[in-house]
Amino acid sequence: MQTFFCAILNDTSAQLKEEETRHLKVLRVKEYDVIRCVDGLGGVFDCKVLKIGKDYTDLEVLTFERFERSKNFYLHLYLAPTKNAERIEWFLEKAVETGIDAITFIDTEHAEKHRVNFQRLERIAISALKQSGQLFLPLLNPITPLNQVSPKGTILFAHCEIGQKQGLVDYFNSNKLQGDIHVFIGPEGDFSKIEIQKMYASGYAAISLGNSRLRTETAALYTVMVINALSPILPSS
Amino acid sequence: MQTFFCAILNDTSAQLKEEETRHLKVLRVKEYDVIRCVDGLGGVFDCKVLKIGKDYTDLEVLTFERFERSKNFYLHLYLAPTKNAERIEWFLEKAVETGIDAITFIDTEHAEKHRVNFQRLERIAISALKQSGQLFLPLLNPITPLNQVSPKGTILFAHCEIGQKQGLVDYFNSNKLQGDIHVFIGPEGDFSKIEIQKMYASGYAAISLGNSRLRTETAALYTVMVINALSPILPSS
Repeated sequence: MQTFFCAILNDTSAQLKEEETRHLKVLRVKEYDVIRCVDGLGGVFDCKVLKIGKDYTDLEVLTFERFERSKNFYLHLYLAPTKNAERIEWFLEKAVETGIDAITFIDTEHAEKHRVNFQRLERIAISALKQSGQLFLPLLNPITPLNQVSPKGTILFAHCEIGQKQGLVDYFNSNKLQGDIHVFIGPEGDFSKIEIQKMYASGYAAISLGNSRLRTETAALYTVMVINALSPILPSS
Repeated sequence: MQTFFCAILNDTSAQLKEEETRHLKVLRVKEYDVIRCVDGLGGVFDCKVLKIGKDYTDLEVLTFERFERSKNFYLHLYLAPTKNAERIEWFLEKAVETGIDAITFIDTEHAEKHRVNFQRLERIAISALKQSGQLFLPLLNPITPLNQVSPKGTILFAHCEIGQKQGLVDYFNSNKLQGDIHVFIGPEGDFSKIEIQKMYASGYAAISLGNSRLRTETAALYTVMVINALSPILPSS
């Protein structure tokens, strides 16, 4: 069954917005058909199509189930917009497929780009969510200057300068993979020396992602994939 | 220093081909300048530019160093061409950045596409090699029917059907990460039931890549990234 992304209004009503309504029409779903919906917050709904409007679809909620997150950690990535927006876009698609909870776009000293197209990113995230069967849409936070971010929990960062670093797998062999995990990925021109010093001074753990120079979006995806792979949650099949 | 990809002719001569010659001209390198070259086989050369032709550049090899592979395993991925060629292309870029030794494109029962643009893939691989500082270009094998591939070594496969599977990290916690490692990734329509049965019957180990449905190129990259992350080789910085 094709899955749609819906906004849940109350226990009995939900609505598809413009993009999903267009999708519904492409698939030739008719009024009174039953469709499967997700809300990106763990909810899975079977809904009857009540009214297909020009840019919205009204739904009656028939059954719903709300799932809890199946992991014992919450992964938050911080990365700078890439010059070529496509690089962030494919990172997002792959990260949502694999599993990610939040992304904050950071503004750093060496950043050359200071904006992202959130509407487009949201569409990509929703599409990857539906395709992969993930139930939780990541939070996409607005662009924030690096020095205004002050996360709590396990904080890691990846940079390309020489310095004390621990392999990502090694790190989680000696530290528990649980709770809030924040990972800062160096931008295309890397973090500045001062930014790196500040992160060391703040007690952030510098991690190594191997011997080669990874592009910023590759480094970000590597982190997401490896941390998910290390998760002790057993696969359902 | 900008790196170029060269074909080494003998101990003293090397040559840049058309694409790299174009690149050299863009960077305004002149005759008698010294450039850094790699050959994708572990060789790193400093070369003097002798003659910049229309579609080739003759080089004099000044110094060369040949590096051995720094890993104790050889990773060979088998995957089917995706309908959208871009998906294989970005997989290749990211896999070369991270580290991969060989890719064989397979023809499977559910395959909808039976060719890839090798010339384009080679260009992408060379570009990723230079950008990332990797020294070994992966072998790109022609499209081969799945039933004509008979690898030796550790053989893993990933499919979406229900069946006995082991998590990728679990697998390498109980089996050594060394020697020839071959991984077969299900195509966009997954392997057929018969193909899956045959792989189980041949003793291939079915691996799980987590709970969500990964696209074929995401699954392939996940495998490459996680296996590299588990590698015991210590990072140089």
